[in-house]
Amino acid sequence: MGYELYYWPSIQGRGEFVRLLFEETETEYVDVARMPARHGMGVPGLMHFLGSRTVEQAPFAPPFLKTGNLVIAQTANILQYLGPRLGLVPRAEAARIWAHQLQLTIADLVTEVHDTHHPIASAQYYEDQKSAAKRRAADFIENRLPKFLGYFENVLKRNLKGDRHMVGARLSYVDLSVFQIVEGLRYAFPNAMTHLEPKYPRLIDLHDRVSARPCIAEYLASERRLPFSEEGIFRHYPVLDQ
Amino acid sequence: MGYELYYWPSIQGRGEFVRLLFEETETEYVDVARMPARHGMGVPGLMHFLGSRTVEQAPFAPPFLKTGNLVIAQTANILQYLGPRLGLVPRAEAARIWAHQLQLTIADLVTEVHDTHHPIASAQYYEDQKSAAKRRAADFIENRLPKFLGYFENVLKRNLKGDRHMVGARLSYVDLSVFQIVEGLRYAFPNAMTHLEPKYPRLIDLHDRVSARPCIAEYLASERRLPFSEEGIFRHYPVLDQ
Repeated sequence: MGYELYYWPSIQGRGEFVRLLFEETETEYVDVARMPARHGMGVPGLMHFLGSRTVEQAPFAPPFLKTGNLVIAQTANILQYLGPRLGLVPRAEAARIWAHQLQLTIADLVTEVHDTHHPIASAQYYEDQKSAAKRRAADFIENRLPKFLGYFENVLKRNLKGDRHMVGARLSYVDLSVFQIVEGLRYAFPNAMTHLEPKYPRLIDLHDRVSARPCIAEYLASERRLPFSEEGIFRHYPVLDQ
Repeated sequence: MGYELYYWPSIQGRGEFVRLLFEETETEYVDVARMPARHGMGVPGLMHFLGSRTVEQAPFAPPFLKTGNLVIAQTANILQYLGPRLGLVPRAEAARIWAHQLQLTIADLVTEVHDTHHPIASAQYYEDQKSAAKRRAADFIENRLPKFLGYFENVLKRNLKGDRHMVGARLSYVDLSVFQIVEGLRYAFPNAMTHLEPKYPRLIDLHDRVSARPCIAEYLASERRLPFSEEGIFRHYPVLDQ
Protein backbone atom coordinates (compact mmCIF):
# COMPACT_ATOMS: atom_id res chain seq x y z
CA MET A 1 0.00 0.00 0.00
CA GLY A 2 1.75 3.13 -1.24
CA TYR A 3 1.64 6.76 -0.21
CA GLU A 4 0.42 9.50 -2.52
CA LEU A 5 0.94 13.08 -1.39
CA TYR A 6 -1.26 15.74 -2.98
CA TYR A 7 0.00 19.30 -2.76
CA TRP A 8 0.63 22.31 -4.99
CA PRO A 9 3.59 21.43 -7.21
CA SER A 10 5.59 24.66 -7.09
CA ILE A 11 5.91 25.50 -3.40
CA GLN A 12 7.12 23.89 -0.18
CA GLY A 13 4.12 25.15 1.76
CA ARG A 14 2.34 22.88 4.19
CA GLY A 15 3.15 19.86 2.03
CA GLU A 16 6.79 20.13 3.04
CA PHE A 17 6.00 19.06 6.61
CA VAL A 18 4.80 15.76 5.14
CA ARG A 19 7.62 15.35 2.61
CA LEU A 20 10.20 15.56 5.40
CA LEU A 21 8.84 12.40 7.06
CA PHE A 22 9.10 10.42 3.84
CA GLU A 23 12.57 11.75 3.10
CA GLU A 24 13.97 11.10 6.58
CA THR A 25 12.74 7.51 6.55
CA GLU A 26 13.47 6.83 2.86
CA THR A 27 9.81 5.91 2.39
CA GLU A 28 8.66 5.79 -1.21
CA TYR A 29 5.91 8.26 -2.04
CA VAL A 30 4.41 9.82 -5.11
CA ASP A 31 4.26 13.61 -5.10
CA VAL A 32 1.20 13.49 -7.32
CA ALA A 33 0.83 17.06 -8.51
CA ARG A 34 4.50 17.21 -9.52
CA MET A 35 4.06 14.30 -11.93
CA PRO A 36 3.05 14.72 -15.59
CA ALA A 37 -0.67 15.47 -15.89
CA ARG A 38 -2.01 12.10 -17.00
CA HIS A 39 -3.37 8.95 -15.38
CA GLY A 40 -4.80 10.96 -12.48
CA MET A 41 -1.49 12.70 -11.82
CA GLY A 42 -0.43 16.33 -12.00
CA VAL A 43 -2.53 19.23 -10.79
CA PRO A 44 -5.70 17.72 -12.36
CA GLY A 45 -5.19 14.73 -10.08
CA LEU A 46 -5.15 17.07 -7.11
CA MET A 47 -8.14 19.08 -8.28
CA HIS A 48 -10.15 15.91 -8.79
CA PHE A 49 -10.35 15.42 -5.03
CA LEU A 50 -11.04 19.05 -4.21
CA GLY A 51 -13.73 19.66 -6.79
CA SER A 52 -15.30 16.24 -7.19
CA ARG A 53 -18.89 15.56 -6.28
CA THR A 54 -18.22 11.84 -6.21
CA VAL A 55 -15.56 11.71 -3.49
CA GLU A 56 -17.36 11.10 -0.20
CA GLN A 57 -14.73 12.48 2.14
CA ALA A 58 -13.24 15.30 0.11
CA PRO A 59 -10.57 17.51 1.70
CA PHE A 60 -11.14 21.22 2.23
CA ALA A 61 -7.64 22.03 1.00
CA PRO A 62 -4.24 20.47 0.25
CA PRO A 63 -2.10 18.86 1.49
CA PHE A 64 -3.77 15.49 1.67
CA LEU A 65 -2.47 11.97 1.66
CA LYS A 66 -3.99 9.03 -0.14
CA THR A 67 -3.12 5.57 1.09
CA GLY A 68 -5.31 2.60 0.32
CA ASN A 69 -8.90 3.75 0.68
CA LEU A 70 -8.02 6.62 3.02
CA VAL A 71 -7.82 10.25 2.01
CA ILE A 72 -6.39 12.21 4.94
CA ALA A 73 -6.24 16.00 4.99
CA GLN A 74 -4.96 18.60 7.45
CA THR A 75 -1.19 18.56 7.85
CA ALA A 76 -1.10 17.69 11.56
CA ASN A 77 -3.64 14.92 10.99
CA ILE A 78 -1.44 13.44 8.25
CA LEU A 79 1.62 13.53 10.50
CA GLN A 80 -0.33 11.94 13.33
CA TYR A 81 -1.25 9.12 10.96
CA LEU A 82 2.24 8.65 9.52
CA GLY A 83 4.17 9.09 12.77
CA PRO A 84 3.64 5.61 14.23
CA ARG A 85 3.85 3.95 10.81
CA LEU A 86 7.22 5.51 10.00
CA GLY A 87 8.64 5.20 13.52
CA LEU A 88 8.65 8.95 14.04
CA VAL A 89 6.73 9.19 17.32
CA PRO A 90 6.95 7.23 20.59
CA ARG A 91 4.54 4.34 21.18
CA ALA A 92 2.88 5.58 24.38
CA GLU A 93 -0.47 7.32 23.93
CA ALA A 94 0.49 10.21 26.20
CA ALA A 95 3.57 10.95 24.07
CA ARG A 96 1.50 10.83 20.88
CA ILE A 97 -1.09 13.24 22.25
CA TRP A 98 1.74 15.56 23.28
CA ALA A 99 3.42 15.31 19.86
CA HIS A 100 0.14 16.13 18.13
CA GLN A 101 -0.47 19.06 20.46
CA LEU A 102 2.94 20.48 19.60
CA GLN A 103 2.29 19.92 15.89
CA LEU A 104 -1.02 21.80 16.14
CA THR A 105 0.80 24.68 17.81
CA ILE A 106 3.31 24.64 14.95
CA ALA A 107 0.31 24.74 12.56
CA ASP A 108 -0.95 27.84 14.38
CA LEU A 109 2.45 29.47 13.93
CA VAL A 110 2.43 28.61 10.21
CA THR A 111 -0.97 30.26 9.82
CA GLU A 112 0.31 33.37 11.55
CA VAL A 113 3.35 33.44 9.26
CA HIS A 114 1.03 33.24 6.25
CA ASP A 115 -1.08 36.08 7.60
CA THR A 116 1.93 38.40 7.90
CA HIS A 117 1.78 38.81 4.12
CA HIS A 118 -1.96 38.18 3.75
CA PRO A 119 -3.66 39.82 6.74
CA ILE A 120 -6.79 40.87 4.83
CA ALA A 121 -7.63 38.29 2.16
CA SER A 122 -5.78 35.12 1.19
CA ALA A 123 -7.13 35.29 -2.37
CA GLN A 124 -5.92 38.86 -3.00
CA TYR A 125 -2.40 39.93 -3.93
CA TYR A 126 0.09 40.84 -1.26
CA GLU A 127 0.55 44.17 -3.01
CA ASP A 128 -3.10 45.02 -2.31
CA GLN A 129 -2.75 44.52 1.45
CA LYS A 130 0.80 45.73 1.94
CA SER A 131 0.20 48.40 4.55
CA ALA A 132 -1.85 46.04 6.73
CA ALA A 133 0.86 43.43 6.16
CA LYS A 134 3.51 45.79 7.50
CA ARG A 135 1.54 46.30 10.70
CA ARG A 136 0.77 42.61 11.14
CA ALA A 137 4.37 41.56 10.44
CA ALA A 138 5.68 44.11 12.95
CA ASP A 139 3.41 42.69 15.65
CA PHE A 140 4.33 39.16 14.64
CA ILE A 141 8.05 39.83 15.00
CA GLU A 142 7.72 41.79 18.21
CA ASN A 143 5.16 39.67 20.06
CA ARG A 144 3.99 36.48 18.45
CA LEU A 145 7.23 35.01 17.09
CA PRO A 146 9.15 35.33 20.39
CA LYS A 147 6.17 33.79 22.18
CA PHE A 148 6.13 30.73 19.90
CA LEU A 149 9.92 30.30 19.79
CA GLY A 150 10.20 30.77 23.55
CA TYR A 151 7.51 28.17 24.05
CA PHE A 152 9.26 25.60 21.84
CA GLU A 153 12.63 26.34 23.47
CA ASN A 154 11.03 25.65 26.85
CA VAL A 155 9.57 22.40 25.59
CA LEU A 156 13.11 21.24 24.80
CA LYS A 157 14.46 22.58 28.09
CA ARG A 158 11.78 20.83 30.16
CA ASN A 159 11.83 17.52 28.30
CA LEU A 160 12.62 15.01 31.04
CA LYS A 161 14.26 12.75 28.43
CA GLY A 162 16.74 15.47 27.53
CA ASP A 163 16.81 18.67 25.51
CA ARG A 164 17.80 17.18 22.18
CA HIS A 165 14.28 16.31 21.04
CA MET A 166 10.83 17.84 21.28
CA VAL A 167 9.16 14.58 22.32
CA GLY A 168 10.88 11.81 24.25
CA ALA A 169 14.45 10.69 23.65
CA ARG A 170 14.44 10.13 19.88
CA LEU A 171 13.74 11.90 16.64
CA SER A 172 10.03 12.51 16.01
CA TYR A 173 8.07 14.22 13.28
CA VAL A 174 7.84 17.27 15.55
CA ASP A 175 11.62 17.68 15.32
CA LEU A 176 11.39 17.61 11.52
CA SER A 177 8.72 20.32 11.64
CA VAL A 178 10.81 22.45 13.98
CA PHE A 179 13.65 22.23 11.45
CA GLN A 180 11.29 23.42 8.71
CA ILE A 181 9.96 26.29 10.82
CA VAL A 182 13.47 27.59 11.51
CA GLU A 183 14.42 27.25 7.83
CA GLY A 184 11.32 29.12 6.74
CA LEU A 185 11.66 31.86 9.32
CA ARG A 186 15.29 32.41 8.33
CA TYR A 187 14.22 32.80 4.72
CA ALA A 188 11.30 35.12 5.45
CA PHE A 189 12.69 37.18 8.31
CA PRO A 190 16.51 37.07 8.22
CA ASN A 191 16.91 40.30 10.21
CA ALA A 192 14.48 39.29 12.91
CA MET A 193 15.98 35.82 13.18
CA THR A 194 19.52 37.17 13.49
CA HIS A 195 18.36 39.03 16.58
CA LEU A 196 16.17 36.29 17.99
CA GLU A 197 18.17 33.10 17.46
CA PRO A 198 20.67 33.56 20.31
CA LYS A 199 17.74 33.37 22.74
CA TYR A 200 16.75 29.90 21.58
CA PRO A 201 19.95 27.84 21.52
CA ARG A 202 18.26 24.43 21.93
CA LEU A 203 15.89 25.11 19.07
CA ILE A 204 18.70 26.16 16.75
CA ASP A 205 20.78 23.18 17.80
CA LEU A 206 17.87 20.89 16.98
CA HIS A 207 17.50 22.55 13.59
CA ASP A 208 21.21 22.04 12.90
CA ARG A 209 21.17 18.39 13.93
CA VAL A 210 18.13 17.65 11.75
CA SER A 211 19.67 19.34 8.73
CA ALA A 212 22.83 17.24 9.17
CA ARG A 213 21.00 13.91 9.19
CA PRO A 214 22.13 11.98 6.11
CA CYS A 215 18.73 11.53 4.45
CA ILE A 216 17.67 15.10 5.16
CA ALA A 217 20.99 16.54 3.97
CA GLU A 218 20.74 14.52 0.76
CA TYR A 219 17.16 15.68 0.26
CA LEU A 220 17.96 19.35 0.86
CA ALA A 221 20.70 19.17 -1.78
CA SER A 222 18.45 17.44 -4.29
CA GLU A 223 16.01 18.81 -6.85
CA ARG A 224 13.18 17.25 -4.89
CA ARG A 225 13.51 20.09 -2.36
CA LEU A 226 11.69 23.04 -3.90
CA PRO A 227 13.17 26.47 -3.21
CA PHE A 228 11.49 28.98 -0.92
CA SER A 229 9.79 31.72 -2.91
CA GLU A 230 7.31 34.58 -2.74
CA GLU A 231 4.52 32.20 -3.64
CA GLY A 232 4.71 30.02 -0.56
CA ILE A 233 3.93 30.50 3.10
CA PHE A 234 7.37 31.75 4.10
CA ARG A 235 7.95 34.80 1.89
CA HIS A 236 10.79 37.25 2.04
CA TYR A 237 9.58 40.82 1.70
CA PRO A 238 12.29 43.03 3.21
CA VAL A 239 9.73 45.64 4.25
CA LEU A 240 8.08 43.05 6.54
CA ASP A 241 11.37 42.18 8.24
CA GLN A 242 12.35 45.31 10.10
CA MET B 1 -10.54 9.84 37.12
CA GLY B 2 -12.29 13.19 36.65
CA TYR B 3 -12.12 15.84 33.96
CA GLU B 4 -10.89 19.36 34.63
CA LEU B 5 -11.38 21.93 31.88
CA TYR B 6 -9.16 25.00 31.96
CA TYR B 7 -10.38 27.99 29.99
CA TRP B 8 -10.98 31.71 30.45
CA PRO B 9 -13.94 32.07 32.81
CA SER B 10 -15.92 34.85 31.12
CA ILE B 11 -16.25 33.75 27.48
CA GLN B 12 -17.47 30.77 25.49
CA GLY B 13 -14.46 30.89 23.17
CA ARG B 14 -12.71 27.71 22.18
CA GLY B 15 -13.53 26.14 25.55
CA GLU B 16 -17.18 25.91 24.52
CA PHE B 17 -16.43 23.21 21.95
CA VAL B 18 -15.23 21.05 24.86
CA ARG B 19 -18.05 21.97 27.26
CA LEU B 20 -20.64 20.79 24.73
CA LEU B 21 -19.31 17.22 24.85
CA PHE B 22 -19.56 17.09 28.62
CA GLU B 23 -23.03 18.63 28.61
CA GLU B 24 -24.43 16.36 25.88
CA THR B 25 -23.24 13.24 27.68
CA GLU B 26 -23.96 14.48 31.23
CA THR B 27 -20.32 13.89 32.09
CA GLU B 28 -19.15 15.55 35.29
CA TYR B 29 -16.38 18.08 34.81
CA VAL B 30 -14.85 20.96 36.70
CA ASP B 31 -14.67 24.24 34.82
CA VAL B 32 -11.61 25.20 36.82
CA ALA B 33 -11.21 28.91 36.10
CA ARG B 34 -14.88 29.55 36.89
CA MET B 35 -14.46 28.19 40.43
CA PRO B 36 -13.43 30.37 43.41
CA ALA B 37 -9.71 31.13 43.29
CA ARG B 38 -8.40 28.74 45.93
CA HIS B 39 -7.08 25.19 46.08
CA GLY B 40 -5.63 25.49 42.57
CA MET B 41 -8.92 26.72 41.14
CA GLY B 42 -9.96 29.99 39.51
CA VAL B 43 -7.82 31.88 37.03
CA PRO B 44 -4.66 31.32 39.14
CA GLY B 45 -5.22 27.58 38.63
CA LEU B 46 -5.24 28.15 34.90
CA MET B 47 -2.23 30.47 34.93
CA HIS B 48 -0.24 27.93 36.95
CA PHE B 49 -0.07 25.65 33.92
CA LEU B 50 0.66 28.41 31.42
CA GLY B 51 3.36 30.18 33.39
CA SER B 52 4.90 27.39 35.42
CA ARG B 53 8.48 26.31 34.99
CA THR B 54 7.78 23.03 36.74
CA VAL B 55 5.11 21.60 34.42
CA GLU B 56 6.89 19.45 31.86
CA GLN B 57 4.27 19.51 29.14
CA ALA B 58 2.82 22.99 29.51
CA PRO B 59 0.17 24.14 27.02
CA PHE B 60 0.78 27.10 24.72
CA ALA B 61 -2.72 28.46 25.38
CA PRO B 62 -6.13 27.48 26.80
CA PRO B 63 -8.30 25.50 26.52
CA PHE B 64 -6.66 22.48 28.04
CA LEU B 65 -7.98 19.41 29.77
CA LYS B 66 -6.50 17.73 32.80
CA THR B 67 -7.38 14.13 33.43
CA GLY B 68 -5.22 11.91 35.59
CA ASN B 69 -1.63 12.71 34.70
CA LEU B 70 -2.48 14.04 31.25
CA VAL B 71 -2.65 17.71 30.33
CA ILE B 72 -4.07 17.98 26.81
CA ALA B 73 -4.18 21.25 24.90
CA GLN B 74 -5.44 22.30 21.46
CA THR B 75 -9.23 22.09 21.14
CA ALA B 76 -9.33 19.51 18.35
CA ASN B 77 -6.81 17.37 20.21
CA ILE B 78 -9.03 17.45 23.31
CA LEU B 79 -12.09 16.45 21.32
CA GLN B 80 -10.16 13.66 19.63
CA TYR B 81 -9.26 12.36 23.09
CA LEU B 82 -12.75 12.69 24.56
CA GLY B 83 -14.70 11.49 21.52
CA PRO B 84 -14.19 7.73 21.97
CA ARG B 85 -14.39 7.97 25.77
CA LEU B 86 -17.74 9.77 25.70
CA GLY B 87 -19.19 7.78 22.78
CA LEU B 88 -19.17 10.78 20.46
CA VAL B 89 -17.25 9.35 17.50
CA PRO B 90 -17.49 6.02 15.61
CA ARG B 91 -15.12 3.21 16.54
CA ALA B 92 -13.45 2.70 13.16
CA GLU B 93 -10.07 4.40 12.71
CA ALA B 94 -11.02 5.80 9.29
CA ALA B 95 -14.08 7.53 10.77
CA ARG B 96 -12.02 8.98 13.61
CA ILE B 97 -9.41 10.37 11.24
CA TRP B 98 -12.22 11.91 9.18
CA ALA B 99 -13.89 13.39 12.27
CA HIS B 100 -10.60 14.93 13.38
CA GLN B 101 -9.95 16.31 9.91
CA LEU B 102 -13.36 18.02 9.96
CA GLN B 103 -12.70 19.35 13.45
CA LEU B 104 -9.39 20.84 12.33
CA THR B 105 -11.19 22.54 9.44
CA ILE B 106 -13.69 23.93 11.95
CA ALA B 107 -10.69 25.17 13.98
CA ASP B 108 -9.41 26.96 10.88
CA LEU B 109 -12.79 28.63 10.45
CA VAL B 110 -12.77 29.70 14.11
CA THR B 111 -9.35 31.31 13.65
CA GLU B 112 -10.62 33.18 10.61
CA VAL B 113 -13.66 34.39 12.56
CA HIS B 114 -11.32 35.68 15.28
CA ASP B 115 -9.20 37.47 12.72
CA THR B 116 -12.18 39.38 11.30
CA HIS B 117 -12.03 41.58 14.40
CA HIS B 118 -8.30 41.19 15.03
CA PRO B 119 -6.58 41.12 11.63
CA ILE B 120 -3.43 42.95 12.78
CA ALA B 121 -2.61 42.02 16.37
CA SER B 122 -4.48 39.77 18.78
CA ALA B 123 -3.13 41.66 21.79
CA GLN B 124 -4.30 45.07 20.57
CA TYR B 125 -7.81 46.49 20.85
CA TYR B 126 -10.32 45.98 18.06
CA GLU B 127 -10.72 49.75 17.94
CA ASP B 128 -7.08 50.12 16.92
CA GLN B 129 -7.44 47.83 13.90
CA LYS B 130 -10.98 48.68 12.89
CA SER B 131 -10.36 49.69 9.30
CA ALA B 132 -8.34 46.55 8.55
CA ALA B 133 -11.08 44.58 10.34
CA LYS B 134 -13.71 46.01 8.00
CA ARG B 135 -11.74 44.84 4.98
CA ARG B 136 -11.00 41.42 6.40
CA ALA B 137 -14.60 40.88 7.51
CA ALA B 138 -15.90 41.87 4.07
CA ASP B 139 -13.64 39.29 2.44
CA PHE B 140 -14.58 36.72 5.05
CA ILE B 141 -18.31 37.16 4.41
CA GLU B 142 -17.97 37.27 0.65
CA ASN B 143 -15.43 34.50 0.08
CA ARG B 144 -14.29 32.50 3.05
CA LEU B 145 -17.52 31.94 4.96
CA PRO B 146 -19.45 30.59 1.93
CA LYS B 147 -16.50 28.33 1.14
CA PHE B 148 -16.48 26.81 4.62
CA LEU B 149 -20.26 26.51 4.94
CA GLY B 150 -20.56 25.07 1.43
CA TYR B 151 -17.89 22.53 2.28
CA PHE B 152 -19.65 21.41 5.47
CA GLU B 153 -23.02 21.28 3.68
CA ASN B 154 -21.43 19.01 1.09
CA VAL B 155 -19.99 16.77 3.79
CA LEU B 156 -23.54 16.19 5.04
CA LYS B 157 -24.88 15.74 1.51
CA ARG B 158 -22.23 13.18 0.58
CA ASN B 159 -22.32 11.22 3.83
CA LEU B 160 -23.13 7.68 2.69
CA LYS B 161 -24.77 7.03 6.06
CA GLY B 162 -27.23 9.87 5.51
CA ASP B 163 -27.26 13.64 5.68
CA ARG B 164 -28.27 14.00 9.31
CA HIS B 165 -24.76 13.78 10.73
CA MET B 166 -21.29 14.96 9.79
CA VAL B 167 -19.65 11.59 10.48
CA GLY B 168 -21.40 8.24 10.18
CA ALA B 169 -24.98 7.59 11.24
CA ARG B 170 -24.97 8.96 14.79
CA LEU B 171 -24.23 12.10 16.74
CA SER B 172 -20.52 12.91 16.99
CA TYR B 173 -18.54 15.73 18.52
CA VAL B 174 -18.28 17.25 15.05
CA ASP B 175 -22.06 17.76 15.04
CA LEU B 176 -21.82 19.58 18.37
CA SER B 177 -19.12 21.84 16.95
CA VAL B 178 -21.21 22.57 13.85
CA PHE B 179 -24.03 23.64 16.17
CA GLN B 180 -21.66 26.01 17.97
CA ILE B 181 -20.32 27.45 14.71
CA VAL B 182 -23.82 28.28 13.47
CA GLU B 183 -24.77 29.79 16.84
CA GLY B 184 -21.65 31.93 16.87
CA LEU B 185 -21.97 33.05 13.27
CA ARG B 186 -25.60 34.05 13.85
CA TYR B 187 -24.51 36.15 16.81
CA ALA B 188 -21.57 37.78 15.03
CA PHE B 189 -22.95 38.17 11.51
CA PRO B 190 -26.78 38.17 11.64
CA ASN B 191 -27.16 39.99 8.33
CA ALA B 192 -24.74 37.77 6.48
CA MET B 193 -26.26 34.62 7.95
CA THR B 194 -29.79 35.67 7.01
CA HIS B 195 -28.63 35.76 3.41
CA LEU B 196 -26.47 32.65 3.55
CA GLU B 197 -28.48 30.16 5.58
CA PRO B 198 -30.99 29.18 2.86
CA LYS B 199 -28.07 27.78 0.84
CA TYR B 200 -27.10 25.33 3.57
CA PRO B 201 -30.33 23.60 4.64
CA ARG B 202 -28.67 20.43 5.95
CA LEU B 203 -26.27 22.40 8.12
CA ILE B 204 -29.08 24.49 9.62
CA ASP B 205 -31.19 21.39 10.16
CA LEU B 206 -28.29 19.77 12.01
CA HIS B 207 -27.90 22.89 14.15
CA ASP B 208 -31.61 22.82 15.00
CA ARG B 209 -31.60 19.13 15.89
CA VAL B 210 -28.56 19.53 18.15
CA SER B 211 -30.08 22.52 19.95
CA ALA B 212 -33.25 20.50 20.59
CA ARG B 213 -31.47 17.59 22.22
CA PRO B 214 -32.61 17.42 25.87
CA CYS B 215 -29.21 17.83 27.53
CA ILE B 216 -28.11 20.57 25.15
CA ALA B 217 -31.41 22.44 25.47
CA GLU B 218 -31.17 22.26 29.25
CA TYR B 219 -27.58 23.49 29.11
CA LEU B 220 -28.35 26.39 26.80
CA ALA B 221 -31.08 27.56 29.17
CA SER B 222 -28.84 27.27 32.22
CA GLU B 223 -26.39 29.71 33.77
CA ARG B 224 -23.57 27.37 32.84
CA ARG B 225 -23.90 28.59 29.24
CA LEU B 226 -22.04 31.90 29.13
CA PRO B 227 -23.50 34.55 26.83
CA PHE B 228 -21.79 35.61 23.60
CA SER B 229 -20.08 38.97 23.97
CA GLU B 230 -17.58 41.34 22.42
CA GLU B 231 -14.79 39.69 24.40
CA GLY B 232 -15.00 36.28 22.80
CA ILE B 233 -14.24 34.88 19.38
CA PHE B 234 -17.67 35.50 17.87
CA ARG B 235 -18.22 39.24 18.29
CA HIS B 236 -21.05 41.31 16.95
CA TYR B 237 -19.80 44.58 15.49
CA PRO B 238 -22.52 45.79 13.07
CA VAL B 239 -19.92 47.51 10.90
CA LEU B 240 -18.28 44.14 10.18
CA ASP B 241 -21.58 42.55 9.13
CA GLN B 242 -22.55 44.38 5.96
